[in-house]
Amino acid sequence: MRAISAVGELAGTGPLLVREVADPRAARSARDPRADASRADDTLSWLAERTSAQPMAVTRTPLAAITGWSTDPDTGTIRHESGRFFSVQGVQVHSPRSPVPVWSQPIINQPEIGILGILACTFDEVLHLLLQAKIEPGNPRGHQLSPTVQATRSNYTRVHRGLAVPYLEYFRDPGRHRVLADVRQSEQGSWFLQKRNRNMVIELAEPVAPREGFRWFTLAEIHHLLAVPNVVNMDARTVLSCLPIDGGELEQKPGGGFAAALAASLSGTRGSLHAGAEVLSTITDHRTRMEVGTVAVPLAGLADWHRSEHSIRHRSGAFFEVVAVDVQASEREVARWSQPMFAAVGLGLAAFLVRSVDGVLHVLMHLRAEPGFVDVVEFAPTVQCTPDSYHHLPAGMRPPFLDLVTGAAPEAIRYDTVLAEEGGRFHHTETRYVVVETDEPIERPDYRWLTVHQLHDLLRHSHYVNVQARSLVACLRSLITPAKRRTP
Amino acid sequence: MRAISAVGELAGTGPLLVREVADPRAARSARDPRADASRADDTLSWLAERTSAQPMAVTRTPLAAITGWSTDPDTGTIRHESGRFFSVQGVQVHSPRSPVPVWSQPIINQPEIGILGILACTFDEVLHLLLQAKIEPGNPRGHQLSPTVQATRSNYTRVHRGLAVPYLEYFRDPGRHRVLADVRQSEQGSWFLQKRNRNMVIELAEPVAPREGFRWFTLAEIHHLLAVPNVVNMDARTVLSCLPIDGGELEQKPGGGFAAALAASLSGTRGSLHAGAEVLSTITDHRTRMEVGTVAVPLAGLADWHRSEHSIRHRSGAFFEVVAVDVQASEREVARWSQPMFAAVGLGLAAFLVRSVDGVLHVLMHLRAEPGFVDVVEFAPTVQCTPDSYHHLPAGMRPPFLDLVTGAAPEAIRYDTVLAEEGGRFHHTETRYVVVETDEPIERPDYRWLTVHQLHDLLRHSHYVNVQARSLVACLRSLITPAKRRTP
Repeated sequence: MRAISAVGELAGTGPLLVREVADPRAARSARDPRADASRADDTLSWLAERTSAQPMAVTRTPLAAITGWSTDPDTGTIRHESGRFFSVQGVQVHSPRSPVPVWSQPIINQPEIGILGILACTFDEVLHLLLQAKIEPGNPRGHQLSPTVQATRSNYTRVHRGLAVPYLEYFRDPGRHRVLADVRQSEQGSWFLQKRNRNMVIELAEPVAPREGFRWFTLAEIHHLLAVPNVVNMDARTVLSCLPIDGGELEQKPGGGFAAALAASLSGTRGSLHAGAEVLSTITDHRTRMEVGTVAVPLAGLADWHRSEHSIRHRSGAFFEVVAVDVQASEREVARWSQPMFAAVGLGLAAFLVRSVDGVLHVLMHLRAEPGFVDVVEFAPTVQCTPDSYHHLPAGMRPPFLDLVTGAAPEAIRYDTVLAEEGGRFHHTETRYVVVETDEPIERPDYRWLTVHQLHDLLRHSHYVNVQARSLVACLRSLITPAKRRTP
Repeated sequence: MRAISAVGELAGTGPLLVREVADPRAARSARDPRADASRADDTLSWLAERTSAQPMAVTRTPLAAITGWSTDPDTGTIRHESGRFFSVQGVQVHSPRSPVPVWSQPIINQPEIGILGILACTFDEVLHLLLQAKIEPGNPRGHQLSPTVQATRSNYTRVHRGLAVPYLEYFRDPGRHRVLADVRQSEQGSWFLQKRNRNMVIELAEPVAPREGFRWFTLAEIHHLLAVPNVVNMDARTVLSCLPIDGGELEQKPGGGFAAALAASLSGTRGSLHAGAEVLSTITDHRTRMEVGTVAVPLAGLADWHRSEHSIRHRSGAFFEVVAVDVQASEREVARWSQPMFAAVGLGLAAFLVRSVDGVLHVLMHLRAEPGFVDVVEFAPTVQCTPDSYHHLPAGMRPPFLDLVTGAAPEAIRYDTVLAEEGGRFHHTETRYVVVETDEPIERPDYRWLTVHQLHDLLRHSHYVNVQARSLVACLRSLITPAKRRTP
């Protein structure tokens, strides 16, 4: 996070210039000494109460019977009668240099750019973030912590004639407030066709009183909750990752080897293995060379995929299914609706291999192509896959470093928590997020060791870091907060 | 430009970390005291000699008679028989919030990403750049200075079975050398459909001996030549703009108000009117809100455009024409060929309004949508238009600030030179590039005052600064070199 210091402030000398300096507030918020296990327990109780008070009933329904949605008789595309929200269609993917050079799959086409926004404010001398207890039909268990605002464009332009979105006004006109982050980022490129959301953090000069279902949290409190399965939702994780945490002050504190290396990685003052120009050149090079083609094909009769009454699934039983649900909610913009969803088969895995180089923690990032990316390649976790999907493939086709992660010694595992993917589109779809420390100086052409500071620089811009890696940035950074958390 | 300082260089302690610090070499090269008017004259003579030795005969030909090209009988699309290079097709553009909300036009579709690369090397204690004397069929007069390598993908993969491209090997594997810049950038979004070229500056540890037709230049020498009409070609200008010039050292030198403000603008140490997060948020906001739709339509029978034997032109006679040429060259990869080209009607205008704010020069950038942009909006010059095209429109539709530029007092005009657009696609298409100083604190929603340092930061990434603005960055920065130039 960059703070702003005004210069040339003599009255009447004309406009002010601003200079950007390292901003210690996020790091201080991550060290908030008042955050402890009892606060985390209190939040978990609050979330459980919200679920009791506002339950959501979700039942599977036949694909042909989704109220408000229809299947195109020619193409098989599943779309909403309004033409808005999203559709499920078929694509064929050509990726000549990958182990599977051609495949077909269903994909979600959601061209609208939604808003994922968190309000920030400093009070009681600590930076706080306003989060919402929110339930989504795909959540593995009730309410999770979500951004202040989580709204599709259909949502905030009131296509479904629901209630107004609270706090939306702060994000519709960001120029009127102080912007800490405002950047469009991709979502799952294997499941979405070029979907982007606008990730925003807007700072208020004075705190607003939280409405029912909202609470202010310090970063330390959020970091404790990131150790608990399925509490901080995907949207909150991606927005958090776009708010840089400068580690400069943390470097002064006493700490062990890992903590000090992580602080040095956040601050950037001690350097990195690769210069910035070299990192950007690597991305340009991969984006220019890689040939990934994604073409629309009919969902009806899609090669290797079979539609039954309740789902569309791959003949291997692997990857994911397209399903449909009826939803009944007590307090939402709309009380009752139906929709298609994707349901992953098996638990996903997203892992960072991290290594301390001359006392600075580096993350092994994978330059990964996904069919739905806007710009060919993004930096992804070291390992990102659904391990179960590889059971039907030969051993040589297992993703690099998968065995290194699944076979890691317990003391090398720095973070290990199951977190759900976005519950508005994905049904009970969970990923095991893992950070594993290694001392192997791995070098491979499509992998690069980057510091967290370098990831922060990339995260100011669109489409450099994919959504799984953004979640892991939030998870890895949570380790700068001293562990007072307990596992429920 | 960022230099790299190695830390932790103790032998055997493992990998080195690099730290990035301001690099004064580009600024020193721009102050090279040996650059003077006689050197500029020598280069102009050399270019003239090259044109005499290697003339190029260009003759207009009927559109139906372009050897190797054909017009699709149904759509009217003009394409090469190989399917490579580029095609001329029709688009309809919807831009609901612009003065002309719907229009149709021909456009060049060139999906391949070419390489524009300059080799750099420090010798005689000064940073030098290797440029090429190159002639293109559309050049208003003979040879111009172009990048070391200027190659389309068809070009360097030898689709037309021509000669190998000299020095290409340095750019095909940039990881083996030191990369100073490597970024895909857009070209004219009004004439190209999503065209990008890869702008590269690669530094060698030891200079190579220039082949015939190549010479090493300091930045000061190039800056002097930027004051001469049609000498530094568009491709050289855009690559130059992607090489940052840190102005820190220049700030120490004595100088007038404008020179000091320009140096402060280059260095960034004294701040800027808008914080970086605010600038990025402005772009995100415009890209999210603007609705510009470009759809393919047949070129045959395109509304308002008429095809005759020799051209396709707008019924008003304005904008540009599609023409065809036969080319005979003495020394090129291919000695004889034919091709379609675009020919602008009238002289273009691209202008920066600049203003000193608290001693730091700021440029008024326009957040501009063009139909061929990959990502909706880029920062463009304050004024970018063909003034003649507005004669048939009502006065209220004249672009903002046009009158302020065309009516500027002579002493406010800091730079004013006619430069050609890319001669491989554009026939005798010239633009008057102008920098006008003002003291008006203009504020408009789709304009922002940025420092050159902020533009440097944006130019490390794709699609923030359009090609006309990149030319103007090179032109504006040329003013840091003391004027010893003379007009020929």
